[in-house]
Amino acid sequence: MPKPDPALLNPARYPFRCDVTTRFSDLDFNWHVNNVGMSDLFQEGRVRFHAACGWKPGLEGNAPMAASIALDFLGEARHPEPVTIQAGLLEIGRTSHTLCELATQGDVIVAFAKVVMVCVKDGRPTENPASFVSGSGAWMVRP
Amino acid sequence: MPKPDPALLNPARYPFRCDVTTRFSDLDFNWHVNNVGMSDLFQEGRVRFHAACGWKPGLEGNAPMAASIALDFLGEARHPEPVTIQAGLLEIGRTSHTLCELATQGDVIVAFAKVVMVCVKDGRPTENPASFVSGSGAWMVRP
Amino acid sequence: MPKPDPALLNPARYPFRCDVTTRFSDLDFNWHVNNVGMSDLFQEGRVRFHAACGWKPGLEGNAPMAASIALDFLGEARHPEPVTIQAGLLEIGRTSHTLCELATQGDVIVAFAKVVMVCVKDGRPTENPASFVSGSGAWMVRP
Amino acid sequence: MPKPDPALLNPARYPFRCDVTTRFSDLDFNWHVNNVGMSDLFQEGRVRFHAACGWKPGLEGNAPMAASIALDFLGEARHPEPVTIQAGLLEIGRTSHTLCELATQGDVIVAFAKVVMVCVKDGRPTENPASFVSGSGAWMVRP
Repeated sequence: MPKPDPALLNPARYPFRCDVTTRFSDLDFNWHVNNVGMSDLFQEGRVRFHAACGWKPGLEGNAPMAASIALDFLGEARHPEPVTIQAGLLEIGRTSHTLCELATQGDVIVAFAKVVMVCVKDGRPTENPASFVSGSGAWMVRP
Repeated sequence: MPKPDPALLNPARYPFRCDVTTRFSDLDFNWHVNNVGMSDLFQEGRVRFHAACGWKPGLEGNAPMAASIALDFLGEARHPEPVTIQAGLLEIGRTSHTLCELATQGDVIVAFAKVVMVCVKDGRPTENPASFVSGSGAWMVRP
Repeated sequence: MPKPDPALLNPARYPFRCDVTTRFSDLDFNWHVNNVGMSDLFQEGRVRFHAACGWKPGLEGNAPMAASIALDFLGEARHPEPVTIQAGLLEIGRTSHTLCELATQGDVIVAFAKVVMVCVKDGRPTENPASFVSGSGAWMVRP
Repeated sequence: MPKPDPALLNPARYPFRCDVTTRFSDLDFNWHVNNVGMSDLFQEGRVRFHAACGWKPGLEGNAPMAASIALDFLGEARHPEPVTIQAGLLEIGRTSHTLCELATQGDVIVAFAKVVMVCVKDGRPTENPASFVSGSGAWMVRP
């Protein structure tokens, strides 16, 4: 599978970041954060990013759904230090948007995610919130 | 992001399958299995597949690590019915292999995963178990 | 802390049972199902029991909340075999009820739970569904 | 079931505390941290407490196992604020010890746990680490 674009592995390019406590339950027998634990950390960063950038508040009853999630594991995240999730928008469509997330721990890049989210109404894609689209400039991954 | 190859969405092509109970804790506010729950179901199918196809037993102390996981959400999985995970190998490298997983619930295709796993020793890729390589023919996704 | 009543450790006394697949993610470094994994398995059995005995369907918009959960770990549950959750009612109050759950794997008793659930409306306890109370005789732990 | 001793619901009595990020995945349909999520938060506090008080480092290959966990849910924990876990020892036996944990969010007491942990070797209880016993005075719940 294609590797993530190295330009997207630079934390300084992301407009949003948050720290999430790692948990003992994130670990597996390799004593590092497991891929499912990392999926959960990325979801946590995404939920907080979507609150900050106005997508979630703008949904007004429409449902947020993930259409695809591509994860690259680039290093090992340990316990008990927190993981930092950086997030930013990459592309906005009519009913969907693509975001990137970069997980770091201290100076170590541990994982990267590219996610397509869709705005859904009655089981069908529906238009992105207008307020989210108009305000999205501030939340794009920086050039 | 590119859609999964439709030919890989046919359950009959997969040499392995197992049923996994869905749990209330897999659900989110959309009342369907959440993306993290689906990641966990795919991990469960993978662990069982890796036991069956001989990769895991062949590791003999080397560590199994995921290098990348690409998930496509194609339908909604519900509770309390079980999810069936189909799995098969797509490609075998020197130190890694690529597998595909297809999640179905009844007749509904709910998700697809393409996963690259690496055999790791002291933090570096090491060769796949010889017994796994020699026996892998039976575990490939069928043409 | 007081040990569970040995009479409650007899699977034959329970009117309800269901099998739940164990998952790799339930395990911890002791290679057995972790206490959090067991909490999740008990929740799964409880949700299915509450659907069967009519408490959940009778809530009609009131919220089910756990007031207390006491867990005793009596053996070790392994992967990949399923765990069987037995459940039955012990006592029914005006707004709450107490249930017991017994987790077994094959012939091994692995854990026991005693749980108090409350029916909640607008943040305050409210009366149990009448249909649940009238039909509860069939769902009591048997003498 | 007996209510927790009110004297144990005072955060000031606990010698240890840590903050843990709540996650979207801890929530259930009541939009509060679910009982399984709370079990995981208590485990996280416990693991960190056991590292701090020297029990875990003293085990030297013996396994830490929970014998019983009693949880009382006393309020509702929300997302996205962190939960604070307070912990302290209540009693030390030859092979086991009892600890208490108090979960708060801001000024709200959300849950209480009483946990019996056992030091296990080859499947049987074995003596507590001498260094843990001798240093335990500093880690008791304060009078």
